[in-house]
Amino acid sequence: MAIKALIFDVFGTCVDWRKSVAREVARTWPAIDAMAFTDAWRREYDPSMAPIRNGTRGYEPLDTLHQEGLDRVAKRFGVAPPDGLVGAWERLDPWADVVPGLEALAREHIIAPCSNGSIALMTRLSKYAGLPWDCVLGAELAQSYKPDPAVYLACCKALRLAPEEVMMVAAHNSDLHAAHALGLATGFVPRPNEWGETQTTDLAADGDWAIVAPDFLTLHQRLMEKNGATTIS
Amino acid sequence: MAIKALIFDVFGTCVDWRKSVAREVARTWPAIDAMAFTDAWRREYDPSMAPIRNGTRGYEPLDTLHQEGLDRVAKRFGVAPPDGLVGAWERLDPWADVVPGLEALAREHIIAPCSNGSIALMTRLSKYAGLPWDCVLGAELAQSYKPDPAVYLACCKALRLAPEEVMMVAAHNSDLHAAHALGLATGFVPRPNEWGETQTTDLAADGDWAIVAPDFLTLHQRLMEKNGATTIS
Repeated sequence: MAIKALIFDVFGTCVDWRKSVAREVARTWPAIDAMAFTDAWRREYDPSMAPIRNGTRGYEPLDTLHQEGLDRVAKRFGVAPPDGLVGAWERLDPWADVVPGLEALAREHIIAPCSNGSIALMTRLSKYAGLPWDCVLGAELAQSYKPDPAVYLACCKALRLAPEEVMMVAAHNSDLHAAHALGLATGFVPRPNEWGETQTTDLAADGDWAIVAPDFLTLHQRLMEKNGATTIS
Repeated sequence: MAIKALIFDVFGTCVDWRKSVAREVARTWPAIDAMAFTDAWRREYDPSMAPIRNGTRGYEPLDTLHQEGLDRVAKRFGVAPPDGLVGAWERLDPWADVVPGLEALAREHIIAPCSNGSIALMTRLSKYAGLPWDCVLGAELAQSYKPDPAVYLACCKALRLAPEEVMMVAAHNSDLHAAHALGLATGFVPRPNEWGETQTTDLAADGDWAIVAPDFLTLHQRLMEKNGATTIS
């Protein structure tokens, strides 16, 4: 079946959250290790969503979880976060291939984020980074968090498409395993420096993904070849 | 308070649904009165949402209501609708000022549709018409239909903005009355030919709207003047 829409992980896959957030942390507290602070803040992310995924806490947008994580990490570092620092997650630089790649993909497909970020966060982040989405989908629609199947299925339903017509694109194998299990097509674009030069995770595909590409422009090219091949066969 | 986002009615305000749908109706059935058919189809719109607004029917996307309305009108006209004609609502031409006006407004503001159209419908329509939204909001978020307050409030909440920071833009006074009652700012852009040259409704503002403008470019200009004046005072 032809792919009609591509939905994207954003943090890490489309944008370099680490260097972007660390830049604002460094500006806020010149004396602390900004990369260590940023990594600690990001490590709060996954556990902060767990109670919402398992239903012991009602849905709260990621903005709230980011603020709570910031408060915990700042305490550990012995600093007091200023108002507005949580907004650093709305000012993230895209990887160099992302904007031209999305522009190419958008010519023949619907493109949308399928991120754990809230609509407010994704909208501001995308405006800052120039990400040319056709609409903003993701966790808030489903009132849950990836990899809860509800999030991927809510995106397909909102687009009025079958999972087979939608490709999930991510730099994280776990995201693709969750989408693949629901019947979505999968595209893996590794970001080997997401966690810096010593990164050891997600350097290579560990599943049978439909497309593996080093960047979004190559993803577009391979998708075109695949569609071409489908038409011929 | 400064306006941070503008949300827009779409059918009639941004796009010329009447001539666009009639074009597809005429292509489908050359022998029938395409304008009369289109007007009849559009007149099914408001009553079809009433049971959902008052809670006697669960939320169904507008695509479903459009299809049901089409089936009823086709029966009255003695014709059988082909598959896909409901998609005519995804291929609507924008008024000439809309794309440049939205591009100007998007430079300083978040812009999004606040339409009764579903996310799937708005996404396809906006891609067809080139409407450069930052995200797609509207009825589906609230699982209800304008003028239910829930729809306007869901848009503000999704943007993490107070109603006073959001301007509702519409060619229909009723839409603005509903938004104004909730504290949103209001912008009226009449479309005197939405229903053709004999239109009698919504030719002029009938409320105390913050901005009245003949087109989106002028709306942008007046909004800039207002923001400028606010800064100076």
